[in-house]
Amino acid sequence: MSLTICVAQLNFHIGNFELNTQKMLKAIQEAKTHGADLICFSELATCGYPPRDFLEFDDFIDKCNQSVHKLAEAAWGIGVIVGSPSVNPVIEGKDLFNSAFLLYDGKIQAHANKALLPTYDIFDEYRYFEPATSFNVVKFKGYKIALTICEDLWNLGNENPLYTICPMDELMDQHPDFMVNVSASPFAYDHAHSRIRVLKENVKRYQLPLFYVNHSGAQTEILFDGGSLVFSPTGMVYDELPYFEECMKYYDLKHVMQGGISNVQHKEKIPLIYRGIVQGIKDYFGKLEFTKAAVGLSGGIDSAVTTVLAAEALGADNIHVLLMPSHFSSDHSVDDSIQLAQHLGIKYDIINIAQLYHEYLEVLKPLFGDLPFDVTEENIQARIRGMLLMALSNKFGHIVLNTSNKSEMAVGYGTLYGDMCGGLSVIGDVYKMEVFEVANYINRDQEIIPQNIITKPPSAELRHDQKDSDSLPPYEVLDPILYQYIEKQQGPREIISQGFEEELVLRILRLVNINEFKRYQTAPVIRVSSKSFGMGRRVPIVAKYLS
Amino acid sequence: MSLTICVAQLNFHIGNFELNTQKMLKAIQEAKTHGADLICFSELATCGYPPRDFLEFDDFIDKCNQSVHKLAEAAWGIGVIVGSPSVNPVIEGKDLFNSAFLLYDGKIQAHANKALLPTYDIFDEYRYFEPATSFNVVKFKGYKIALTICEDLWNLGNENPLYTICPMDELMDQHPDFMVNVSASPFAYDHAHSRIRVLKENVKRYQLPLFYVNHSGAQTEILFDGGSLVFSPTGMVYDELPYFEECMKYYDLKHVMQGGISNVQHKEKIPLIYRGIVQGIKDYFGKLEFTKAAVGLSGGIDSAVTTVLAAEALGADNIHVLLMPSHFSSDHSVDDSIQLAQHLGIKYDIINIAQLYHEYLEVLKPLFGDLPFDVTEENIQARIRGMLLMALSNKFGHIVLNTSNKSEMAVGYGTLYGDMCGGLSVIGDVYKMEVFEVANYINRDQEIIPQNIITKPPSAELRHDQKDSDSLPPYEVLDPILYQYIEKQQGPREIISQGFEEELVLRILRLVNINEFKRYQTAPVIRVSSKSFGMGRRVPIVAKYLS
Repeated sequence: MSLTICVAQLNFHIGNFELNTQKMLKAIQEAKTHGADLICFSELATCGYPPRDFLEFDDFIDKCNQSVHKLAEAAWGIGVIVGSPSVNPVIEGKDLFNSAFLLYDGKIQAHANKALLPTYDIFDEYRYFEPATSFNVVKFKGYKIALTICEDLWNLGNENPLYTICPMDELMDQHPDFMVNVSASPFAYDHAHSRIRVLKENVKRYQLPLFYVNHSGAQTEILFDGGSLVFSPTGMVYDELPYFEECMKYYDLKHVMQGGISNVQHKEKIPLIYRGIVQGIKDYFGKLEFTKAAVGLSGGIDSAVTTVLAAEALGADNIHVLLMPSHFSSDHSVDDSIQLAQHLGIKYDIINIAQLYHEYLEVLKPLFGDLPFDVTEENIQARIRGMLLMALSNKFGHIVLNTSNKSEMAVGYGTLYGDMCGGLSVIGDVYKMEVFEVANYINRDQEIIPQNIITKPPSAELRHDQKDSDSLPPYEVLDPILYQYIEKQQGPREIISQGFEEELVLRILRLVNINEFKRYQTAPVIRVSSKSFGMGRRVPIVAKYLS
Repeated sequence: MSLTICVAQLNFHIGNFELNTQKMLKAIQEAKTHGADLICFSELATCGYPPRDFLEFDDFIDKCNQSVHKLAEAAWGIGVIVGSPSVNPVIEGKDLFNSAFLLYDGKIQAHANKALLPTYDIFDEYRYFEPATSFNVVKFKGYKIALTICEDLWNLGNENPLYTICPMDELMDQHPDFMVNVSASPFAYDHAHSRIRVLKENVKRYQLPLFYVNHSGAQTEILFDGGSLVFSPTGMVYDELPYFEECMKYYDLKHVMQGGISNVQHKEKIPLIYRGIVQGIKDYFGKLEFTKAAVGLSGGIDSAVTTVLAAEALGADNIHVLLMPSHFSSDHSVDDSIQLAQHLGIKYDIINIAQLYHEYLEVLKPLFGDLPFDVTEENIQARIRGMLLMALSNKFGHIVLNTSNKSEMAVGYGTLYGDMCGGLSVIGDVYKMEVFEVANYINRDQEIIPQNIITKPPSAELRHDQKDSDSLPPYEVLDPILYQYIEKQQGPREIISQGFEEELVLRILRLVNINEFKRYQTAPVIRVSSKSFGMGRRVPIVAKYLS
């Protein structure tokens, strides 16, 4: 006798118990008609991942439990594995476990608790959960399943293991037949590689097949790429599910045991970033029940790329762009923007901000007197544009998309409440040089973004003949330094030793640190790298370190 | 032979190693001249608490270690206890420990590692630190000291202990003579009570004197109140150091053993909130090396109280307020504001925003057509005001103070990039009803805030004859519901069962949850309660829970 196992890679909505439960009930029904013996959902599937401080509400936990019971009632003739929090019966320690339940015959048959609780970067699991200290296989139809939760498999194959225990080592004493891991493993453009490496290390060590179920979809700023995996016991990838799609696939355990198939997807950086961001926009709007986006098109590459991504995610009909030239704007900025809007078939309006700008200078004259033009006047222009976009948003129900890239967010090259406004930062985790790559990728088959937007020197156009290079080093130099500091957590000494000029490195690191106050007040940033601004990078505003 | 112990309650600056080290070297010198045998500094005193992700940089840890070595070199003829991170020599587990070092005779003599790592609310310690699993007393001049770090004493006297182990129970096997606890225990207006209760519980259980050293001062949004404590072994508070002050005090261990003195301060809520916020403003500006604040005075109580607190913290000369009436503003709003400015002796300017407002409507007319006045036009006014304040800030180097109170931040009654702008939220953790109490406290001896500002019905004055009560329930009803939901983590069922109307409760909880996107983009909020908006309250923006 063999077993048919369904890997159900779905997109959940945090706290939307009705939707999540219905989606799983439907999947169970479908799996039954496919003759599956067992269906596996992802980590904390009942409530969505990460539920964050909602976990501190008894009401929220009650709803998770109700959802588990509803699923159990449907678990007739099919086993269901589903992630959900469970209450820690012991008074000492945290109140909850991060658990996976095995449901069968209308009942909860068993559950496993997570032992390795990721508490770094975007993860806060020890904030809520007590780590498991005892380990038992769960039994299903004569098989013994080594059931683990996400990080539980992540202390093999890492250079710097974060944990002192290894759940699978414990479970092996009980001679399991196969492994199931329920996950909510976030996307980063280089993460799928390491995920496969780490899981393969487990499979090789334990010589058991592995069914790895991941979440697919975006939760505010965090993307989950899916890419669920099935491994044969030799360590070969038997199958990899698609990225950024809901998907249910069925596997005969006997076939997986035998291996022989190896189905892995391409993992090219720029297409993955593109697809990830599109998913991020789609779910941000969809799950908040918004449909329309507003963008300020400056004629620069950042707003152009943002607009294309938004049009791809939401449809051209749902995008409204504003062109807001001042007397510092070049003619081609408007022309290029119009051309882009026409290529995409999106609605655009032009509002000249010269008169408003003039009016601000007028009312401020009694305070400013004859003080010279400086960043104040530049910011006034950026803020007028932000305000007009927000007015559009308020009147018609758009969400304004923030167009800042990661390089300028890093060094504070942007105006708070001006170009840094918006409900969602689309490319805030994409360095400027990568933005160019995304633009070229967008234009790979035909010119969607006018070439002039890509080739002209970057400029904020907030004063006469301004160029980014007036105040910043070339992005070819800036971006690698930022990458070393932000993604790689390298200090000044290490970065300088890589051959960068000392004075420049210190200046850039200082800019990053003194501009934390700006990033604190910007929109959530769709995360595509291993270290993005936002919840995964927590630094004090008031400090004096490298600043 | 007895021992003279110095409790050094100081205000550190995160990452400012030079300043922190110099401050401690000076304190050591002073303690030596006072004949102290031992001086105790607070938790992570070398780098300041909380250093957050700076801890992930090797360079930062190197600097902490250098600081410890400099202090050790000064530890001749006096013992020094100081908190600083230390590197975990084991590869498995987190890279660091949160440690306390005993320095003497020019050397590191011993160190203790923290076992209980707070990872809740504003705390993220397990993000960085491995918990200690072995425990040893440190020996000094023939005494055995049970040296623990902050939370290590916090699993006694709590209803819901978060930890499964108890470091002091372990240390008692080695028969220590007294306890030293180095802390960075944050302020909340009701926290000093529970701190004394928990520490007393320890003293009573172990029957040892306790020297408890806390940090004093603000770190961005977090206040540390000091209030360091010395307990006699019977459980009596021998001394409590002042709140919000740097202070060094000396104790003869023999006298502390005998007890007999009991010196505890008043802990009244409103004066504590007042002092806490003043400290918060002072350190935010001081540590960032800013001196001047700008505030928009609306004629309402929130901006009035904010201005008084700012003047107290920074001096009247450093405050510049703008009065920015529109045609919706009442005459008394301007008059009251002028009167307040005059009472305080602060600089004020009046800018009428009517013309700018009109100009926005003009340029938006082609887009808006004849659509009726709505929240869009209200927000335009609020945003013009925000922009003018930011222009002042940019031109003259002010930090704009945000004037939103906790009630309106909770329900989203405020304009993003408008009245919600600013670098620091002064009263964002103070409910509206508490703002009234603070105003009355300010006026306790003389009328500083014009009485009319306190007594008139709250209004945003963004449309004709508008009152807060048009869209919100009375604050007497709103605030207790918010308190139950936010501070007490009570769900709808529990709140309704307290006698609040169901429909109202659900409406308010929904408002709180759907407005997370606004709070995400506002300034850090000076934390005075046990649960403030910001880093201590982490909820998803995109979710559908109670919303």
